[in-house]
Amino acid sequence: MDINKEALALHAKLVGKIEIKSKVKATKDNLPLLYTPGVAAVSSAIFANKKRVYDYTSKANTIAIVSNGSRLLSLGNVGPEAAIPVMEGKSLIYKEYADVNAIPLCINSSTLQEIVSIIKAISPSYGAINLEDIQSPLCLEINDVLSSELDIPIFHDDQQGTAVAVLAALINSLKLVKKNLQTAKIVVLGAGTAGYGIVNLLVYAGCKNILALDGQGTLYAGRQNMNKYKEHLASITNLSKMKGNLADALYGADVCIAVCAQKDIIKSEHVQSMNSQSIVFALSNPDPEILPSLALEAGAAIAATGRSDFENQVNNSIVFPFLMKKILTQRINKVDTKLLYHAAIKIAKAIKPSLHHIVPTMQEMKEVKL
Amino acid sequence: MDINKEALALHAKLVGKIEIKSKVKATKDNLPLLYTPGVAAVSSAIFANKKRVYDYTSKANTIAIVSNGSRLLSLGNVGPEAAIPVMEGKSLIYKEYADVNAIPLCINSSTLQEIVSIIKAISPSYGAINLEDIQSPLCLEINDVLSSELDIPIFHDDQQGTAVAVLAALINSLKLVKKNLQTAKIVVLGAGTAGYGIVNLLVYAGCKNILALDGQGTLYAGRQNMNKYKEHLASITNLSKMKGNLADALYGADVCIAVCAQKDIIKSEHVQSMNSQSIVFALSNPDPEILPSLALEAGAAIAATGRSDFENQVNNSIVFPFLMKKILTQRINKVDTKLLYHAAIKIAKAIKPSLHHIVPTMQEMKEVKL
Repeated sequence: MDINKEALALHAKLVGKIEIKSKVKATKDNLPLLYTPGVAAVSSAIFANKKRVYDYTSKANTIAIVSNGSRLLSLGNVGPEAAIPVMEGKSLIYKEYADVNAIPLCINSSTLQEIVSIIKAISPSYGAINLEDIQSPLCLEINDVLSSELDIPIFHDDQQGTAVAVLAALINSLKLVKKNLQTAKIVVLGAGTAGYGIVNLLVYAGCKNILALDGQGTLYAGRQNMNKYKEHLASITNLSKMKGNLADALYGADVCIAVCAQKDIIKSEHVQSMNSQSIVFALSNPDPEILPSLALEAGAAIAATGRSDFENQVNNSIVFPFLMKKILTQRINKVDTKLLYHAAIKIAKAIKPSLHHIVPTMQEMKEVKL
Repeated sequence: MDINKEALALHAKLVGKIEIKSKVKATKDNLPLLYTPGVAAVSSAIFANKKRVYDYTSKANTIAIVSNGSRLLSLGNVGPEAAIPVMEGKSLIYKEYADVNAIPLCINSSTLQEIVSIIKAISPSYGAINLEDIQSPLCLEINDVLSSELDIPIFHDDQQGTAVAVLAALINSLKLVKKNLQTAKIVVLGAGTAGYGIVNLLVYAGCKNILALDGQGTLYAGRQNMNKYKEHLASITNLSKMKGNLADALYGADVCIAVCAQKDIIKSEHVQSMNSQSIVFALSNPDPEILPSLALEAGAAIAATGRSDFENQVNNSIVFPFLMKKILTQRINKVDTKLLYHAAIKIAKAIKPSLHHIVPTMQEMKEVKL
């Protein structure tokens, strides 16, 4: 049976991968405490001091995973219903790996103003928000607005979680091939959500030689057809204002980080044209930009994908459960670049890396204290 | 320890009465099926045919309990944070008694338009919506609008669930005292959400002699200071257009159904002035309008409250888990009066009633097929 048929069969059997569970069994004796009349005392205590909601309710350890399904995996705009299985999978991982309760909240909404106001309105129930699989640059705008206006932390996994995983993997990979983070020539293929998060974090980490590309080629200051996020990327990368396409950019590069959701767009000859001891991360799911076997065959020293069924999984799944647990436990109010940077450093240090094991697996991450 | 202190201690110990649970343990082998890459096939299948979301996801058995905490129990407008423990308690009951996954969704919003648009936006994730503890008449308006505009069923428990419990209890009580549903003089104290639901269902069930009262006294057609819901109640009750206060209304009444959230407002002399073999339901939580011991002492044949720690609990908790399970299982699209009426009949018939056991307990309801 192929993986798609198997996945469909498993989902049809489960009809929902997650469920609600009561922490206590309801009895005739405890029901007056768990519900009326006793619960009124708890509500009154929270009304008297709103902060006590963290002492008495699930808000302390519950988040919402909010998506409108407008950019789901590499499938594109498939809508909120089709997003549910992905958000459930994410919720399952949050629970199984970090004991965080994550509620899938797939919404039928596509404008900045409406999504922002919905998330603000639903925020009382949750300790944090995980934005997920919303098209770019809308998701970046939502994150920007809510980072400053929401009274609980907002974590944009596609942007921030992916960036942390990539930085951790890059630190270890460069160490293995004995290259330097500051001077390595790094090509980031894709200037959407993930690309934006990755480039910003790499620059914060000290990378000085980055080229970022979108579908029209290399970003450079002053180029036409860039939204404000791409303009920002152009301003902090490509200081020599190089122009060109994918092949031009990868020529002589040390690192290729592909997050452009274009299956097989990287060819053997591109990898062959890279610097020796090259590193190729092809991270789009489910279809990587180049299969790792092909990248290695073409001369790459290290290859990675975002998939859990290959080795070297460089994916936000090694980040989001664990970083969110830290955010909730330490009651961190704002997800900033410093927080992301330190998480990446800790993840990189958590293992003794090898060519086929550049970052911890999800299972190994369970033991890591972020 | 008194019940309030005990409830606070239990909530402080649990920090959330409910949690998310994965239905399957995540392993290296099943993760590619539960999450990327396999899950993409499930999302694609739902995108191709939206109805399949019921076959593959938790939408089939998951609802949202939506409240803004503007009319919580008898506490009044305490806001969304203070509403969380109540909605969690409700979620716990949904799960423990009927295996329904109910997500507390406490929202910071107070206008009809905004609440309606939030519920519409979040509806893709859920199989139904339970409206809860929103002030009247706003909640009635929300229910009206969404009953016709939402593509999943909406159940307004304070209005509809309470009405079903009351009708079931009334049918059995009248049978015990050998009185007739059509001719019994029934006084409904409170013309808010619960009162509105109760009177409408009693009229549908054939009651012809109802008086409904709000804080200003008996409703009658043409009275001043009535919103459209009270006007409707006035038009289907009190055909002789009686005026008067609580004492006037209860004089010679067979049944008093109090849902006005005014502790101890019914006095012994009111009960004494009722017809012989009177029935007194004092249903507000946590503080009934008259304690059952006092009502019985004053001559009532049957007394009931909404509390789980007294006998004769006439509360929506004997309705909502079980009726919602029916709605989800049978994929019922609209909660109408006929559905409520038939549920009440089945609940009434589920036991052989006695004076101290007029309706099934929640435990007994587990065995009832609605």
